Amino acid sequence: MAASWSMGPGTLEVPLSLFAKNRKRLAEKLKPGQIVVLQGGESINHYDTDVEYVFRQESYFTWACGVREEGCFFALDPGTSASYLFKPRLPAEYEVWMGKLHTCDDFKRIYGVDHVYYVDEISKVLKGLHPDALLTLSGPNTDSGLTAKEAVFEGIDEFKVDNETLFPIIAELRVIKTPEEIDVMRYVVKVSSDAHKQVMLFTKPGLIEYQCESIFLDHCYRVGGCRHVSYTCICGSGHNGATLHYGHAGAPNTKPIQQGEMCLFDMGGNYAGYAADITCSFPANGKFTDDQKLIYEAVLSARDAVIEAAKPGVMWDEMHLVANRAMLEHLKKGGLLNGDVEDMIKAGVNGVLQPHGLGHFLGLDVHDVGGYLPGCPPRPAPPLSRLRTARQLLPGMNNPEQSRFFNWEAVERFHGSGGVRIEDDVLITDSGVENMTQVPRTVAEIEDFMANGANFK
Amino acid sequence: MAASWSMGPGTLEVPLSLFAKNRKRLAEKLKPGQIVVLQGGESINHYDTDVEYVFRQESYFTWACGVREEGCFFALDPGTSASYLFKPRLPAEYEVWMGKLHTCDDFKRIYGVDHVYYVDEISKVLKGLHPDALLTLSGPNTDSGLTAKEAVFEGIDEFKVDNETLFPIIAELRVIKTPEEIDVMRYVVKVSSDAHKQVMLFTKPGLIEYQCESIFLDHCYRVGGCRHVSYTCICGSGHNGATLHYGHAGAPNTKPIQQGEMCLFDMGGNYAGYAADITCSFPANGKFTDDQKLIYEAVLSARDAVIEAAKPGVMWDEMHLVANRAMLEHLKKGGLLNGDVEDMIKAGVNGVLQPHGLGHFLGLDVHDVGGYLPGCPPRPAPPLSRLRTARQLLPGMNNPEQSRFFNWEAVERFHGSGGVRIEDDVLITDSGVENMTQVPRTVAEIEDFMANGANFK
Repeated sequence: MAASWSMGPGTLEVPLSLFAKNRKRLAEKLKPGQIVVLQGGESINHYDTDVEYVFRQESYFTWACGVREEGCFFALDPGTSASYLFKPRLPAEYEVWMGKLHTCDDFKRIYGVDHVYYVDEISKVLKGLHPDALLTLSGPNTDSGLTAKEAVFEGIDEFKVDNETLFPIIAELRVIKTPEEIDVMRYVVKVSSDAHKQVMLFTKPGLIEYQCESIFLDHCYRVGGCRHVSYTCICGSGHNGATLHYGHAGAPNTKPIQQGEMCLFDMGGNYAGYAADITCSFPANGKFTDDQKLIYEAVLSARDAVIEAAKPGVMWDEMHLVANRAMLEHLKKGGLLNGDVEDMIKAGVNGVLQPHGLGHFLGLDVHDVGGYLPGCPPRPAPPLSRLRTARQLLPGMNNPEQSRFFNWEAVERFHGSGGVRIEDDVLITDSGVENMTQVPRTVAEIEDFMANGANFK
Repeated sequence: MAASWSMGPGTLEVPLSLFAKNRKRLAEKLKPGQIVVLQGGESINHYDTDVEYVFRQESYFTWACGVREEGCFFALDPGTSASYLFKPRLPAEYEVWMGKLHTCDDFKRIYGVDHVYYVDEISKVLKGLHPDALLTLSGPNTDSGLTAKEAVFEGIDEFKVDNETLFPIIAELRVIKTPEEIDVMRYVVKVSSDAHKQVMLFTKPGLIEYQCESIFLDHCYRVGGCRHVSYTCICGSGHNGATLHYGHAGAPNTKPIQQGEMCLFDMGGNYAGYAADITCSFPANGKFTDDQKLIYEAVLSARDAVIEAAKPGVMWDEMHLVANRAMLEHLKKGGLLNGDVEDMIKAGVNGVLQPHGLGHFLGLDVHDVGGYLPGCPPRPAPPLSRLRTARQLLPGMNNPEQSRFFNWEAVERFHGSGGVRIEDDVLITDSGVENMTQVPRTVAEIEDFMANGANFK
């Protein structure tokens, strides 16, 4: 049996025990006779053509077994702890196009599960386990509003199916990361940090935004083995920095970067399914103006306040307000705001300046599951309704913290100058926070790094 | 009105007249009262998450109007030649996430169509045109077996819908490229040629295959403005070169390249929707062995024979045999085959050595439409059944020619050494062939380029 998987020399070896431990944690939450059945992802064609998107596996499926190929099913018998994979039975002539087809024995070796069969055998095999019920996955993704992919196969109507039990259990397990998962996240955050640093060294006025995106993608893939990024790269310069999800097809990172502009680059690699999510904001020419410094340091003070305050037991909506208070104080000190900070919050000034929640969970999904599970605090009323969670922090949670300052009419001299966001990937430890992100963050660090790159560790 | 669209300084300006001319050609084939309705692509989420694939437009939709955003409809009234776009009506608060939302007037300016409305107005607007019938798109893609995306909107059941007339007409129009389209294809093939050259200079034993893929992607995007490639990069070294569609998720370009191996890299950029499709085969260390040279030159002789013979009027299945004969002759001369070449073809030796068709049409799709339209020669019987077309060549057709040599048991010393493919993107001109591909092709050119890169133009 292979003990691990990697993208080759120089990239992280992901131990198969990562997935085995996830399965063990899941089995412990279930009763004998409750057979878990998950369906993996299918490939997607570009419309009616024979070209496919590069396959990406569904996240719950990755969590349970790490399978990187399409068309599979997974089953887990909590009574025996035995794991089952079911793979497509492909015609032998596919070898000409796809290379040597994996056998069931190959799959057993590659993915380290107990039993492997073909998909057309799933009904027969599951019947042999005499399940009280098949547990399938069904529940809402509270970030997208979409529903989890529920397993369906020929013959499933002959079983008793329970699609309510599994979802809250497996989603909650995904919220708390194991040491093995944390190692993978440290790796992908390190690769993504390094890629951001390459981008900072490359950026200069005159380039087009997507040229910076390309540098990021190349570093993540060529150096770190990340074939995918975790979301569409957001590479905003100048006023585009104020658009939270800039970079989509209607605004595809095509503006030339101008002298004097700030860049706001929000990009994260993906390794073995696990996501990084990092935002760097810096001046295109490597030198902050006084105004840029004022705004940047207001956001940085919000980030610092949260890193200082976050630890097991604190509530996420409190952290959001900790960030807001620090930002408002800083802007008041800088002469951009007047009055009492608590009054500003009552008046909703913080929501104008930061129109999104502080952060979100991070894991196999960039906006990871578990924000609003049953038994957790519900979505708060406005102005906190955009928070992606209101939960209490616990060790093993992963959060990228996010802070941003919008300058609307309030401060005319900033009008159209964009935004600042600082986004770190942090882990809640027993005593506080581990910041896994390793990029220049203070004004002095950024200016020094962009002038003399090699000096920054 | 914008006269053109590009990815910014240094990239090709694509004139909006390209799409206007396509519409004009289409209108001329139809009768007044036949209102064309096309539906553009939708974005696709990663399963239930809020992350989306970077949007790619459907090819017929691109052909007709060049729209790069999701959720739109297009209509053409051949009676008046008027073109209509229908765009989604988005809530104003989306601006925080997406940036300034395009108005209908913006769309008119950006895409150069006559009228722009919101999608929720489509039924009302089309009724005002008093159509005899709405022509929708429905027909088979003969490479994938899938069916074209047919327009559906609320209220379409109140119209007479004809889904048979449009498909063969628009598919045939896509087969013959206009001068404007050929300019775009020359550009994307040039960018992709340059990217292949960068890869050749970068490649050496010890690298992992995907590191070469990353170099290709970065050059296409950063230098050429190609955010997408036209198909998953195939980066096979050694025995992987024998797998036609290597590079998929089950075999993701992760083998370290060994000393003495051949590389077979099949990669093509995409610009404004138009595809390149180029394969380069070369020794990882820059120097062919005698055996590698023998196989490579057999394939090169097949490519040369086709470029020599191809011109308007020739049949594609004849070209396939021209390539096969040249390859077999060369291998016979090299001592790998015995007997009469025509006898070998009768015995199917060519099909063993080249298990795929010679090439395919190229355009908005990498395997472009029109291979087996009504009125064209049908798919030939085996051994030519894998040809993607059997048509007569005409000026304005685009073909990447493909040649490959497999070494099975027949020639033991080549067993496991992979394959060779040479794939050029050529245009059928009035008198012959224009090869748009610009990469080192002969053994001497490749060895010289890999040793002294800068000298090759």
